[in-house]
Amino acid sequence: MSEPHFAAVDWGTSRLRIWLMSHDGTKLAERRSDEGMAKLTQAGYESVLEGHLDAMGAPEVLPVVVCGMAGSRQGWQEARYLTIPASLNDIVSRAVQVTGTRRDIRILPGLAQRDQARPDVMRGEETQLLGGLTESEPIGLACLPGTHSKWARFTNGHISGFSSHMTGELFGLLATQSILRHAVGAGGDFDPANADFVDAVRESFHHAAEMPRMLFSLRASQLLFDRSQIDCYARLSGLLIGGEIAGAELEFGTSDTVHLIASGKLAGLYQSAFAALDKTIHMVDADQAVVAGLVIAARRFWPIADQQAHFGTMKA
Amino acid sequence: MSEPHFAAVDWGTSRLRIWLMSHDGTKLAERRSDEGMAKLTQAGYESVLEGHLDAMGAPEVLPVVVCGMAGSRQGWQEARYLTIPASLNDIVSRAVQVTGTRRDIRILPGLAQRDQARPDVMRGEETQLLGGLTESEPIGLACLPGTHSKWARFTNGHISGFSSHMTGELFGLLATQSILRHAVGAGGDFDPANADFVDAVRESFHHAAEMPRMLFSLRASQLLFDRSQIDCYARLSGLLIGGEIAGAELEFGTSDTVHLIASGKLAGLYQSAFAALDKTIHMVDADQAVVAGLVIAARRFWPIADQQAHFGTMKA
Repeated sequence: MSEPHFAAVDWGTSRLRIWLMSHDGTKLAERRSDEGMAKLTQAGYESVLEGHLDAMGAPEVLPVVVCGMAGSRQGWQEARYLTIPASLNDIVSRAVQVTGTRRDIRILPGLAQRDQARPDVMRGEETQLLGGLTESEPIGLACLPGTHSKWARFTNGHISGFSSHMTGELFGLLATQSILRHAVGAGGDFDPANADFVDAVRESFHHAAEMPRMLFSLRASQLLFDRSQIDCYARLSGLLIGGEIAGAELEFGTSDTVHLIASGKLAGLYQSAFAALDKTIHMVDADQAVVAGLVIAARRFWPIADQQAHFGTMKA
Repeated sequence: MSEPHFAAVDWGTSRLRIWLMSHDGTKLAERRSDEGMAKLTQAGYESVLEGHLDAMGAPEVLPVVVCGMAGSRQGWQEARYLTIPASLNDIVSRAVQVTGTRRDIRILPGLAQRDQARPDVMRGEETQLLGGLTESEPIGLACLPGTHSKWARFTNGHISGFSSHMTGELFGLLATQSILRHAVGAGGDFDPANADFVDAVRESFHHAAEMPRMLFSLRASQLLFDRSQIDCYARLSGLLIGGEIAGAELEFGTSDTVHLIASGKLAGLYQSAFAALDKTIHMVDADQAVVAGLVIAARRFWPIADQQAHFGTMKA
């Protein structure tokens, strides 16, 4: 394979992904592991990272750029939150270099909204925004679904506001720990076009303040009408996602186009949800976006003059 | 003590309460236990009940009236839901007698709202409504806070609609199982007049559709502003209760007076919440209401002509 130029790392609470990247922005190798922050102590990060780099045959001097929870106070080394409003480019300039390691390792900071009325934080998603949005986009709204979904308003590469919604975590708790577990059973895959999902998105979006009441009705509908577990499961998902979209619109106003930065199953569900609400989206793959963001950072940290044109093609 | 006339039993999912009642509606003895439905199989109910009655010195022929989850399909013997709209008096006439027991044991049914658009069920709260509302009340709204809070609209002793809100269960899950557990810590008692609680009730009530977003801000406010855990705990409670009240008002409309049927800490919190929203309540003690409802039923099952006047004083 061609010689790697740097390693890119997305180090979250529950998982770790590492890519060896060539100077032209090509992924040369990839490893995934469940060695997220939740499983590590501060002392463990370097050996975990070195173990993976070694297994991937990375040169000893290869520099590394990291985003995600590894930069939190409870992580490897704190990369203090960048306060918004902020330019996405500032994320790169405010990176911290890990001390006491033989390699050059930089961790990108998260973003903080230091507003007493609506405090919020993100770590990791800022790198998806950096890689997933084009600077020429004048004004827009981005939706990044997940355990704690993020919504961000941006203007010409600046983030002016954002909020977090506990959609994914609520779904997991309600489906497995609450009385609704009897209604949804073990769950399972359902088609994003599932009518129960789509109807629930619409109901919840249009009556968001009543969403909490709609949750218990899942249990009741099973007791009274023998509704199937998979339909209840789809409906639970739809209620939470519809409520999230309604809440974000109330906060940020409607947007002509929402930039949906998502991957895998969540991408399909949110695409279906936005379609059910007749909303236009611009789809951005979240996995590609995080790598693109790390590439933008690496290009600034370790520039190779004649490769800029190549890196530039990453965002196309 | 005077001779008991019957035993009254509130048998819920997690707890069991038994009272020996005199013919004039006086509590002669009381026992509480955690032998709720969740811990029992169908075969276990009779021996648990007999054990407690024996320990209380109840005569072998004493009849027993039961409300709550013991009447569910997974309970002792099913007392099928009474479909609303229904008169509270119908709860008594639709009671079922447990078969195969030496005593006369009657179980009161729950209520079902068999509406495909808003299915709902209750078991146990119908007996609190029976005992806690006066028949002369022309029209009103009752709030019964709990793990699954119930709101019911009534007119002259008829229930025309109700809904369940998972407020208590959500609070427990979020405070102990979610990321918010870091923000609220072990929680603890707080004054119902706590400013964080009251402010959160108002914010959530007036912006109920944004309540899910406000939840994550608890975590962020602790990270960014070092907000204390007990304040976050009070705020979490206020957000959920304010959202519940907003949702109920959207469903049932505003009411001049809400009949708050509650006991203990929840009574204090909901009283404070309603006061923060400038809403008038009529307070009814939930523990007294459930006993009063069981007394009304017992009076119909096992009448003593000359005692009616005495029982009548229970509701004053």
